[in-house]
Order: sequence, then structure tokens, then C-alpha cells
Amino acid sequence: MKFTIDKNLILENIVNVCRAISSKNIIPILNGIKLELNEDGLLLTASDSDLLIKSLIKKEDIDSVDSFGNIVVSSDRLIDIIRNMPEDKIEFEVLEGLKINISSGNSKYNLNCYDPSEYPNVKIEENKNPIVIKSDVFKTIISQTVFAISTQELRPLLTGINIKIIGDILECIATDSYRLAKKTIKLDNAISEDINIVVPGKNVLELDKILTDDEDLTIHIFNNKIIFNYKNITFQSNLLAGTYPNTTNLIPSEFNIMLNTNLKDYNSAVVRAALLTNSRDKNIIKMHLANNSLNISSIAEQGSSNEQLSVESNTNEEFDISFSARYMLEALKTFKDEEILILLNGDTKPIVIKSTEDESLIQLILPIKTY
Amino acid sequence: MKFTIDKNLILENIVNVCRAISSKNIIPILNGIKLELNEDGLLLTASDSDLLIKSLIKKEDIDSVDSFGNIVVSSDRLIDIIRNMPEDKIEFEVLEGLKINISSGNSKYNLNCYDPSEYPNVKIEENKNPIVIKSDVFKTIISQTVFAISTQELRPLLTGINIKIIGDILECIATDSYRLAKKTIKLDNAISEDINIVVPGKNVLELDKILTDDEDLTIHIFNNKIIFNYKNITFQSNLLAGTYPNTTNLIPSEFNIMLNTNLKDYNSAVVRAALLTNSRDKNIIKMHLANNSLNISSIAEQGSSNEQLSVESNTNEEFDISFSARYMLEALKTFKDEEILILLNGDTKPIVIKSTEDESLIQLILPIKTY
Repeated sequence: MKFTIDKNLILENIVNVCRAISSKNIIPILNGIKLELNEDGLLLTASDSDLLIKSLIKKEDIDSVDSFGNIVVSSDRLIDIIRNMPEDKIEFEVLEGLKINISSGNSKYNLNCYDPSEYPNVKIEENKNPIVIKSDVFKTIISQTVFAISTQELRPLLTGINIKIIGDILECIATDSYRLAKKTIKLDNAISEDINIVVPGKNVLELDKILTDDEDLTIHIFNNKIIFNYKNITFQSNLLAGTYPNTTNLIPSEFNIMLNTNLKDYNSAVVRAALLTNSRDKNIIKMHLANNSLNISSIAEQGSSNEQLSVESNTNEEFDISFSARYMLEALKTFKDEEILILLNGDTKPIVIKSTEDESLIQLILPIKTY
Repeated sequence: MKFTIDKNLILENIVNVCRAISSKNIIPILNGIKLELNEDGLLLTASDSDLLIKSLIKKEDIDSVDSFGNIVVSSDRLIDIIRNMPEDKIEFEVLEGLKINISSGNSKYNLNCYDPSEYPNVKIEENKNPIVIKSDVFKTIISQTVFAISTQELRPLLTGINIKIIGDILECIATDSYRLAKKTIKLDNAISEDINIVVPGKNVLELDKILTDDEDLTIHIFNNKIIFNYKNITFQSNLLAGTYPNTTNLIPSEFNIMLNTNLKDYNSAVVRAALLTNSRDKNIIKMHLANNSLNISSIAEQGSSNEQLSVESNTNEEFDISFSARYMLEALKTFKDEEILILLNGDTKPIVIKSTEDESLIQLILPIKTY
């Protein structure tokens, strides 16, 4: 195998497939990137046990193809090596004895390789009726939900994002059992069979990094895996096995107390109150409602904070509730509106945050009982 | 004590004095900032066992002074609290029972304080003949030397910067015993008594952060401390006790081999070779000279690198030397010239790097014997 290629082109593709390589991986060859050069072009593959990324650089985009072949190059330091190459063109040449020469200008690297025949062979399937959405729409869904997944391996299903599709409605849910984020979108085409899957959150975050331009994202869903096609990239993630908790009944549909407040002002007030809280206790702050005025306060070893904010509300009753400032700030970040609705039923009932104009996004936070 | 002050003015001054507060400090009151408001203005003080910073905001720069007084406010979270205040003006008011109210707009903080009478009283002395240099000149000296100090507490003196003044020549030296950085400057005025002191490196780095504008820096040197005056700030550091090793004889004055090379090209070649080295072994790379061509190479578990670079040299003999790429890169960073001189005497003798045009800066690196 011997070819010469543009530095930025090969760098971008190596960076993308390397996202599949896990630092926890203990199988040596899975630290490598498989390079396959044939009539179609250069196919790069990297994978770990639950994620596989392939990227194809078409033959016409390669400056010169001198001979075909396969090799698995260690990804360790490879990105830094390519990035620091002195010139715009880089030559790759596989040598005898599982070695590759990577050179540019007066600079030469000789890297040890793995035998490509030992690299696990994964067949990429296609679904007859894939879902197609714009990648920017998908990125918005991710940013509005993924922060709410659990980081604890105790309940593995909660470390994933729940994607449900019924007809032409796609619903995405994430929860760590203390808060929940839910986003709904309408697809261009209805699908015939209902879908209810859980995609590992860490893989969704890697996909998010790859989606840099607003292009079509084609999604193929199978029983145990999901495949995303984006530009020249194929991204295949395993699904988490099991039944995701039914969250439909957790979100109240009626509320005793409805507050309408300016998002920016409310966010700043929560930021300030959070400064005098204990992060071990999830930064608990207190909200007190009286006469269309919201008082946000906090208390810590160093002192206390207190802030007034005017709101519109549907009640004249006084009301107190405590919650995690960190969870509230993460939820508020998902809204772009000027005004938001804070919906309440009681000091032990979920806090629901919605946009005033758009019903598609719901953030829910459980209150924290303080004495 | 009660006053109202511009948010950015008080923030900038608190940030500066807070640099004296050590995270390792175990005396509670030394986590505080002393505020003293009197006829002169507002004096802020913070200190730990070997560093003290004072900053005076003149009375005319304070928007309103309602009553004088002293207090010690905990610095913990204080910078974040001030930075997040909603409006441009902030009111400070000391309350009974060692508390302070800090408020701005509808936002109020009530912080616990320490008794100012318990804050250690440090008298700031002045020297009759201080040294005055421009702060940008001092910042250059710091950046060209401080990286070479030792981080190991085993030889405490080497964790400091050695400042020597004889007549009107100031010499600044840092070494960790494997490499040495030396910068010489000419002062505007000669001093009468020779000076040879060691200033703790960590304090020099804090001073560097305070010197943001090019203004006069006035230096008062005493037996056991050094005081810097810069704008409205007084910065006092303890000196390290003991005699700094005499480094004069370590730097050779004659060289068998003199190489003249382009700084940027040489630096890039070292960066690239460093990518295939072992950081536990200080990133050893090898340099081979033959026929006015320099070969820079490295070897690691993943493979090897190799790079040619043309140089001017005074010899046709072949020559090999190995050294730490990290040390070389840190030394090269201190030069701004297009060309540099690499001066050698043998594969076990120090490598000296100099500018081709300016004798005031010397970087020395000990080679590493490889087999």
C-alpha cells in the first residue's frame, strides 16, 4: 500500500474515526486504525466493543495511489504526528514486516503496525426504511437531553438516551432519576413499526462531535444496534439491552402554580445563589414565592445569599421549594427563549420548566426536601 | 465600615491580592482578605507565610464612603460573588457580629468575617536606594528563566530564582541541576552594595500575573525579603535562605562545535521527534551532525522518527548527542530570533543555546548518555 494525500483531509478523517477508540480498551489491535486502500478509495476503520466508525476517502480525492493494500496502524500519537507534519502532502507507504513509513518534506516516521487480517470484521447493514433528519436538528436534540443521563453504572440503562418513534413523532428522553429531559420532534416521514431503543450516552456524545456541518443524517435502527450515516462517515453504536423506564406518567400535565419569568434574569439569580452552596449536596438553593415576587436564597458555611425577582404567577399564595442549582442551570441552558414557564404542584412534586412558545421541550427536576 | 465602589475596580484589586492566599494554608484567618477603609482609601491585604500583597484603592476612586472601619472577609468564593454581581456598583456594609453585607441591585450576600484585630500585622519597609525597572523588562526576565527552576523540594534553593546585582548589571539564574537559564540586563543606575538573593519561584510567577501593564516596577531588597511596588500594589516575598550554587563555572566560554540554524525549523523538528519518545525518560531525542546536515531522530515503542535539517557549522567531523526534547523546547521558547547558535564541546558536555545577535540570554542543557 502506497499513497500520497492532503494533510488536512487525512487528519480530519483520522480524528473522526479515532473517536471510536476507547482509552479503557485492552485488546492491542483495537488501539489501531485499519487502513484499506482499493478501487473505491481509502477506508479508515476504528472500533471498540460497542462503537464502530468508518470513514471513506474517495479515490479521486487522494493525490496519488501507487499500490493497494491493508494495514492497521497504531492510533497512539498518530493524530499529533499527522498534525505536526511540515508540508501539505503526506506519503504513506507500507513496508515489509508490518511497518508503515509516513513522510512529509524532510520528516519521516516509521511506525509499527498490526496484521490487518487480525482486525475484527464488522459487517455494516442497511435498513430498508431509514430515518433521515438534518444533523443540526439531531445536535439540538442531543444538547437538550444528554446532560441529564446518569453517570452511575449502577443502572446501566439510565446512562443511555431513550429514543422512541411512533408514526412521525420522535421522542428523546434522558433521566438520572433526579431530573428528566424530554424533546419531541416531528419527522418528515412516518415509520411503520414503533421504535423504543436506548443508545449509550457516551456514543451519542462522540457522534455529536462528528456532526460539524448541517447535512443529512440517515439513521438505520436494528434490534441491537443503530447506524448513522453522515457525509462519508458510518457510525455504528450498540444499543443498551433492557426496557427503559416508562417516563410518561412522571411528567404532570396539570399544575397548581404557574410562574412566567425572564430566562436570563432567573438564570443569573440561580448562578449567584449557587455560589454559596455545598457542591456535595448538589448545590441546594431555595425559592420562595409571595405576591408575584420570587425570592431565591442559599446558605453555606461562608454566609448566605438572597435575591428578589419579579414574576407573573397565577396565585397569591405563598410557596417554598428547594432544588439543586446545578440541575436547574443545566436545564435552563437548553432554552433559547426570552421567557420561560416554571410549573409547580407542591414542595415535594416535580418542578417542570417549559418554553412559553414551544411545547417540544420539557425539563423536569425533583425538589429536595430541606428542614 | 460602609462604602459603594465600582464592580470592576474592586474585582481587579481583590483578584490581585488573592494571589497571596495559599490553598495549602491551614490558618483560617489567612484565607481572608483584610479590608481597611480610612482617609487614604481602601487598603486590601492578603498573605500567607512567605508572601504578602497589599493594594490601595484611593478614596477619590471610591463612589461613596459612608463610614470607616476594618474587617477580614473570607476570600472563599468572593471573586465569583463579585464577578457575578448584577450591576456596576457594589455596596459593602459591615454588620454587627463579624458579618458583611455585599449587595448590588436586588442581589444580597451576607458573609461571615474574621476579627481584623487577629490578622497578622506586617510592616512594609522601604529601602533608601530601590532598583527601578520597567515591568515588561522584568516579565521578560521571568519568562526566560523561571521555567528552569526545580519543582522538587529536596533542594529548596533550586525552587527559587537567583538574582545577582553587581554595579549596574542584574543577572537572573534558574536551574534544576539538569538545565540552566541565565539572563543579564543593564540597570539604569548602579547600586553600591552587591546583591545575591534567591526569590521563591512560585512567588515570582504570582508577581508575573499582576504585571499586566508596562509601568515602573520598584524593587526594595532586604536581608530576608524583597518588596516590589507596582502601580497601587505592594508585593512582599520572603527570600530563600542559603547560598545559591555558584553557576559561573558551569557555563563554558569556548566551544569545539558551533551550529547556526533557523530557530523555527529546528524547533519544529524537535517537536516532531518528541512525539515518538517516552515522557518518563524526559523525552530523549538524538542529534547527529554530518556535513552541515543535522539529523534529529527518536525511537519509542510505537516506532521511530527521523528528520534532516541543514545547518551552518564550523566542523566537518561527525558528532552525536542525546538530550531531553522537553528541556530543549522550553529553552528554545525563550528566543525570539530567526537564527540561533547551538554550542557543543562533546557528547557528555553541556549544550549551550544562544541568540546570534544578543549575548544577554544563555540556555544550557545537560546531555543524556544513551547506549
